[in-house]
Amino acid sequence: MTRLDATHDPAARSWLAAANASGGDFPIQNLPFAVLRRRGRAEAFRGAVAIGDQALDLAALHGHGALSGDVQTVLGLAARPALNDFMAAGPQAWHALRMALFDALHTSANGGTQQILRGCLIPLAEVEYALPTRIGDYTDFYTSIHHAINVGKLLFPDNPLTPNFQWLPIAYHGRASSVVVSGTDFQRPNGQAMPPGAKTPVYTPCTRLDYELEMGFFIGPGNAMGKPVKLADAEQHIFGMCLLNDWSARDHQFWEMAPLGPFLGKNFCTSISPWIVTMEALAPYRVPLPRSGDDPQPLAYLDDTTNRAHGGLDVQLSVTIETARHRARDWPAAEITRTSFRHQYWTVAQMLAQHTVGGCNLQPGDLCGTGTISGPTHAEAGAIVELSVGGSQPITLGGTDEQRTFLLDGDAVILRGWCEKLGAARIGFGECRGMVLPAQA
Amino acid sequence: MTRLDATHDPAARSWLAAANASGGDFPIQNLPFAVLRRRGRAEAFRGAVAIGDQALDLAALHGHGALSGDVQTVLGLAARPALNDFMAAGPQAWHALRMALFDALHTSANGGTQQILRGCLIPLAEVEYALPTRIGDYTDFYTSIHHAINVGKLLFPDNPLTPNFQWLPIAYHGRASSVVVSGTDFQRPNGQAMPPGAKTPVYTPCTRLDYELEMGFFIGPGNAMGKPVKLADAEQHIFGMCLLNDWSARDHQFWEMAPLGPFLGKNFCTSISPWIVTMEALAPYRVPLPRSGDDPQPLAYLDDTTNRAHGGLDVQLSVTIETARHRARDWPAAEITRTSFRHQYWTVAQMLAQHTVGGCNLQPGDLCGTGTISGPTHAEAGAIVELSVGGSQPITLGGTDEQRTFLLDGDAVILRGWCEKLGAARIGFGECRGMVLPAQA
Repeated sequence: MTRLDATHDPAARSWLAAANASGGDFPIQNLPFAVLRRRGRAEAFRGAVAIGDQALDLAALHGHGALSGDVQTVLGLAARPALNDFMAAGPQAWHALRMALFDALHTSANGGTQQILRGCLIPLAEVEYALPTRIGDYTDFYTSIHHAINVGKLLFPDNPLTPNFQWLPIAYHGRASSVVVSGTDFQRPNGQAMPPGAKTPVYTPCTRLDYELEMGFFIGPGNAMGKPVKLADAEQHIFGMCLLNDWSARDHQFWEMAPLGPFLGKNFCTSISPWIVTMEALAPYRVPLPRSGDDPQPLAYLDDTTNRAHGGLDVQLSVTIETARHRARDWPAAEITRTSFRHQYWTVAQMLAQHTVGGCNLQPGDLCGTGTISGPTHAEAGAIVELSVGGSQPITLGGTDEQRTFLLDGDAVILRGWCEKLGAARIGFGECRGMVLPAQA
Repeated sequence: MTRLDATHDPAARSWLAAANASGGDFPIQNLPFAVLRRRGRAEAFRGAVAIGDQALDLAALHGHGALSGDVQTVLGLAARPALNDFMAAGPQAWHALRMALFDALHTSANGGTQQILRGCLIPLAEVEYALPTRIGDYTDFYTSIHHAINVGKLLFPDNPLTPNFQWLPIAYHGRASSVVVSGTDFQRPNGQAMPPGAKTPVYTPCTRLDYELEMGFFIGPGNAMGKPVKLADAEQHIFGMCLLNDWSARDHQFWEMAPLGPFLGKNFCTSISPWIVTMEALAPYRVPLPRSGDDPQPLAYLDDTTNRAHGGLDVQLSVTIETARHRARDWPAAEITRTSFRHQYWTVAQMLAQHTVGGCNLQPGDLCGTGTISGPTHAEAGAIVELSVGGSQPITLGGTDEQRTFLLDGDAVILRGWCEKLGAARIGFGECRGMVLPAQA
């Protein structure tokens, strides 16, 4: 695990006043990475770091030669139109750039440095984002025991949890090509479903469209085929985390998924937040794994004392639905879930160790999802199929008193994530947003 | 479907005598594509076409400016170190290059042309291959009803076939990063398995290592997210086919796969043959779909008269196992399966239409596997778990009289594929080979 240093000091302040506002996502202690450009301009996408209400354009900064030596080289990698090479550079390089950017944004930076950086700022309100990496492969895990039980109960009330759940972080391969950045709307998918009681399936627009509240993590240096990454080394291979919405067509999914798992029920769209919060920035928010005495002891390759004591992450999460009516009346959207990533049964380090144990190679910039994040109470469920109990109990949306069992056209789903506690700076992930457009006729 | 033209004429001959040998894989009617270089040289990989016992180096040919106009441009795309851009160019471009190469390799080519091409030949015995494309995503289908029933019987004897099988081509996402080209050996994977009768799982090298006889197909122009490809247009988006071995760790797979499908049981290695035989070259071998009166009528989006009459492909296939003992005694390896792709329940066009029906975007150079190809009789099974009936009935290998239920270290599996019939030129796929190395200690 990353150690705490001066960049985590909650008293640290930036010369950029907006970065010091209370309740903001992007103080000087955060410094998350994205790929962006000025909105509507025919200019190249490039790497950037968020600070307050601004994006620090790393390509512009690199052009000034503002940093020196090895860090200037690393800055060049982080300035590219995809962050794969920066992620490949590894933890020492990531740390060096974090230190250098922290120093340059800190109140103690000299006037000349401040002047250069001010010239590299773009208001966040004026940017558009690209995917942060060229995603080679996308894997989605299934690591919330509360989600697994909630969904399992709908299908197998007497035996909701598969026998393997507490022995290994379950996962399946997802579709990399249809991962999109927040703000990309998508059409309700058409496909095949077997209506309840029917004898033959139908071709139909999805009637049970769902979101899934997840986090994602990006692979750093990765590993060669045949060379597993041990649990103790796993976090050296994780660059940082984002928010992820694994949109799901439940009717299509449940008809297609025996025996080989979800396919079209998931691959029409997966949304991620543009900003990647580094593992280093998350260091103050490490927590022990939640385990009870009844839980089996994991096999040795998935267990060590560091992981048990610090493997978890207390990232607070919310899901908000904004309907067409919210927008028409300019009413605030309806929050329907709050939970934390701390309840997840398996840690990101365990997920990565499991992914590679058989020799599968991970490559820099690859994306892994954590699976739906549901907390221990019903109100903390991370998918509407859980909140509405399989569509049987509509939920009411604040603001408009509209009801939903599944998503309707025009519904936007917004995921948010943040970390805060006494004695540490609040940091946030921004948001991950996507809206459902009508199905193609 | 592609129409037959002069390039399919079985009487056509090349000025390269080796291309006219009977029983060869690479006559002038085939012209498959690969990416290769001279073995052991520190030179760039580039596109090539197989002809007889030679590879025609397309980068060298392009350097000569031997073709003219648009075809020279297409040749430039096919000469690159990955064929993605060539595949993106679409059927008209593929056809134009095929015609031009056919003419230049034909006995009627003039002396100057022949001289230039002779200077661009590299003996196949002297090349090494790379993957033919940068594979963005890899999808594996499950479209042999005989395989599905064989495997289903092992798990659910009374109800071997899932209810969806005859309604849609089932598929799951695979791992693109661990797809390797023929000749790449791999370590037996370690992982978690639940031994029969045990109460807790164990960490173990795979004890039930299997191959799967499959074919692969490569995506041409592809489609934008949200824009499905209709069945009638599907083959415009398929460049060509290869052999594919979906190595499987059955013990790991069966423990992990509930409820989300195979993951580590498959992602340690997938092998493909280097040569991609184009759909155009396969045109003489189209066959009707095998359907009986009991089979349900597919939904409209998966059915049309062309697909019914010509959607199938009669590619003959074999699986051979070469053990350490075969090699030590220089004995011929043991053929254990012969079958044909013609028995597959769903066509490649139906697979592609299904893949995109919900809006999933396919990109040039993406790879799809057909799923294990098992014919209607036991001897035609495409995986050893079927031949050995779940490991209960060892098979005997010709030549050495060794027995196998699953693969042992040192076993090499060789897939071969070819098409032949009266009135058409025999064409072949070459081979897809990989050997099992011992697990990491």
